[in-house]
Amino acid sequence: PYISERRDSRLSLCRVYMDYNATTPLVPEVIQVVTEAMHKAWGNPSSSYTPGRKAKELITGARESLARMVGGRPQDIIFTSGGTEANNLVIHTAVRHFRESWVPGHMEPDDDHRGTAGAIPHFVTSSVEHDSVRLPLEQLMKEGMAETTFVLVSRVTGQAEVDDVIAAIRPTTCLVSIMLANNETGVIMPISELSQQIWILNQKRMASSLPRILVHTDAAQMIGKERVDVLDLGVDYLTIVGHKFYGPRIGALYVRGPGVTAPLHPMLFGGGQERNFLWEILCDTCVLALQAAELVNKHCEVYEAHMRNIRDYLEERLEAVFGKETLSTCPYLLSALSKPCFHCVVSRPSSILLSCGIPYNVAQNALRLSVGRDTTKEDVDRIVKDLEQAVVQLRQNSIS
Amino acid sequence: PYISERRDSRLSLCRVYMDYNATTPLVPEVIQVVTEAMHKAWGNPSSSYTPGRKAKELITGARESLARMVGGRPQDIIFTSGGTEANNLVIHTAVRHFRESWVPGHMEPDDDHRGTAGAIPHFVTSSVEHDSVRLPLEQLMKEGMAETTFVLVSRVTGQAEVDDVIAAIRPTTCLVSIMLANNETGVIMPISELSQQIWILNQKRMASSLPRILVHTDAAQMIGKERVDVLDLGVDYLTIVGHKFYGPRIGALYVRGPGVTAPLHPMLFGGGQERNFLWEILCDTCVLALQAAELVNKHCEVYEAHMRNIRDYLEERLEAVFGKETLSTCPYLLSALSKPCFHCVVSRPSSILLSCGIPYNVAQNALRLSVGRDTTKEDVDRIVKDLEQAVVQLRQNSIS
Repeated sequence: PYISERRDSRLSLCRVYMDYNATTPLVPEVIQVVTEAMHKAWGNPSSSYTPGRKAKELITGARESLARMVGGRPQDIIFTSGGTEANNLVIHTAVRHFRESWVPGHMEPDDDHRGTAGAIPHFVTSSVEHDSVRLPLEQLMKEGMAETTFVLVSRVTGQAEVDDVIAAIRPTTCLVSIMLANNETGVIMPISELSQQIWILNQKRMASSLPRILVHTDAAQMIGKERVDVLDLGVDYLTIVGHKFYGPRIGALYVRGPGVTAPLHPMLFGGGQERNFLWEILCDTCVLALQAAELVNKHCEVYEAHMRNIRDYLEERLEAVFGKETLSTCPYLLSALSKPCFHCVVSRPSSILLSCGIPYNVAQNALRLSVGRDTTKEDVDRIVKDLEQAVVQLRQNSIS
Repeated sequence: PYISERRDSRLSLCRVYMDYNATTPLVPEVIQVVTEAMHKAWGNPSSSYTPGRKAKELITGARESLARMVGGRPQDIIFTSGGTEANNLVIHTAVRHFRESWVPGHMEPDDDHRGTAGAIPHFVTSSVEHDSVRLPLEQLMKEGMAETTFVLVSRVTGQAEVDDVIAAIRPTTCLVSIMLANNETGVIMPISELSQQIWILNQKRMASSLPRILVHTDAAQMIGKERVDVLDLGVDYLTIVGHKFYGPRIGALYVRGPGVTAPLHPMLFGGGQERNFLWEILCDTCVLALQAAELVNKHCEVYEAHMRNIRDYLEERLEAVFGKETLSTCPYLLSALSKPCFHCVVSRPSSILLSCGIPYNVAQNALRLSVGRDTTKEDVDRIVKDLEQAVVQLRQNSIS
C-alpha cells in the first residue's frame, strides 16, 4: 500500500491513503448510527424490552439497506462475521447439498469419477480467488472430501473465461464460484453470461437427475464501486463485505431464497436469535454499521463517476510521468486500467498477478493503488510526484 | 425478563432493567474507545500504515486485558464472533483431535464401543448447557459422528456432580464440557475439582495410549461477576462472551497454548490476519470493545460486592413480601440464591429448570431476575412492588 501526506484530519499524520481496495474508512454517518446504537440499542434483538426492540428495528433497517444494495429481498440477507465466513458457508453448504441430492448411478462407464454412492463433490473456481475461497477448497481436497478445478484466467483479458469454466464442469460439479471483480487486477468477471450458461446446463441436468450446479460470486470488491444486481448476475449466492464500502469489518451473504430456492446449511449451531438461522451470530453494533449500504444505495452513481474520474486522472498522470510503455508491460493491465475499480498490485510478488501471466520481476515490483470516494486530484498529484522521486532515488542507489 | 420504570437516561422510556444475565449494556468508557477507533483505527490490523497500526495496537491492548481477566497469556486468547462460535470451535477441535490421536485396538472385549479404526469420539456434558454446546453435539450425534452423555444435574445442588461426570467417561471420551455457572439457576459448577480428577485420569490414560480428555468450560455467565482464573480452574478451553460483562456482542476463547498444549483446529479458512490463526475473523471495532475486560480487571471486587449486596437485598425483599416458603419451592433454589450470580427463572417453562427437577407448574411461572453493576436498592424496591401488584391483579382476575 502506498501512502503520502494528506490534509484530511481523519487520517492521523496527514497522509494520502490509496489502498481502498483493502479497507475503506467508516463514514461519519455510520459512526454516528453506531455510537447512538451503543447507547440505546444494546439489548438482545430477540427480546421484548425496549433496548432489544430498538436493536431489532435498527438491524431490520440495515438488512433492508443491504438487500436494496444488491437487488435482493431482505429475507435473502444472512449476516456473517465477514467475507471469510460467507465464502466458507457457501462451500460448506454445497458439500452438504451434494450429499443430500446426489443420486448414485449416472456416471458414464468411461468417467474417471465413478464414485456412485461415494461420489465426491466437485467445485469449479478461478486461479485468482480470495484465500477464503481457495483455502477451504484446498482443505476439503486434502481431506478427500472434494475435488476442485482452478480455472486459469486469460493472459489477455485477466478474466476466467466462460467457455473455460463451462468446460471444467463434471457430473459431480456442485458449485461454481467465481469472484465478481478481482481485488488486485480490478478485472471484472463475466458472471451474468456464466450464470446463463449454467442455467441452460442445469435444465439438461435436471432431466437426467444430476444435481443442480449452484452459482456463487464474491462481490466484495465490486460493491460500492459499480451497481451490483443479483438478478442481473443470476447467482444463487453473493458475498458482501462491509469494510469495502465504508462499513464495518463484517459481512453478509445474499442467498436466493435461503433453504427454499437455494440450500443453506449452518456451520455453527446454537446462536440463532432470528428467523431460525442458527448461524447468524449478531454482533449488533457491527450489523448496524452495515447501514453504510444506504449511502451506496443513495449515491452509487456519484461515487462511481467520481472514482472513475479520479482513476482516469491517476492513469493519465502515471502515463505522463512514466510513459505509456512502462505501464503496459502486460497487455491486459491497460484493459484493467479502463475498469472503474482501480487496479492493483502489491509490494510482494503476488500469486494472483503471477497466475495472470505477469512476469516475476514485474509482479515483484508491483504496487497496488486504489482510489476512494474522497480521493482528490491533489492526492493523485502528490502520489505521482512521490513515486517519481522514489524511482529517481532507487536509480541513484543502484548506480552508487 | 422483568422490567419496571427507572430514572436512568441511558434506558429510553425510563425502566428498570433486570435481565443482566441475558445482556449487559455497553459501558460509556467502551463506547468512547470504540467511537475513537472508528474514526482513527479503521485500517486492516495486519497492514503497515497508520490506521492499520493503530488498530493493531488497540487490538493488542484488548487481547492483553482479556488475558489478564481470566489469568491466561495474551497468546492464549482467540477472538471469535461470539460464544456460539467459541463453543462450536471447541467441539469441532475435539472431534478432529480424536481422529488424529485415537490409536485403534485398546477397547475391552466387552466394550460396546469397539470401533477400533472407526471409533466414534465421545463427549460428556451436562443437561443444562447453553444451546451452543447442546445443539452442535446433537447435530454430530444425528450424523453418527459423535456420542454424547448428558449428565443430569443434581436435584439437590443443581450442579453436575464430579462423580457423575467422571463415571460417564469412556475410553473414547475426547472432551468434557461443563459450564462454569448456569445462566438460569446461577448455580456454580465444580470445575476445579473436576479438572483435577480428569488430570489424574489423563495420567493413567497416557500410559495406555488413550487420548487425553480435554476440558472446556463456558464461563459466559461468570465473568465480571466473580474472579475467573484458568489456572485455578485447570481447563484447556474457556469461553468468554463480551455482552455479559458490559462489552460487545462478540466473544473469545481461551486456549491453553493453542496448537501446542491444547489442540485447535480452524472451522473457517482464509481470513487469517494475525498469528496464522486463520479462524480469527476480526471485527475490529467489536474487538476493541472487549476493552470492557479492563474494567473487570480493575473493579471486579467492587462489582462483585455491589451485586452480591443488591441480590441479597432483592432476596430479602422478595422473602418479606412473598414469604420464605413461596421462594423455597425447591430445595436448591435457595442455595442458588446464596450465589453471587443472581439466579433466574424465565417466563416460559424452561428446559433447564425442568431438568433441574423443578415441577412443571413452578417452572412455567418462573421469572428470571438478574442484577447488574448499576442496579440500586430503589430499583429492587420498585421491582418487588410491581411484582406484588401483579400478583394481586392476577389473583383478582382468577377470582372474577
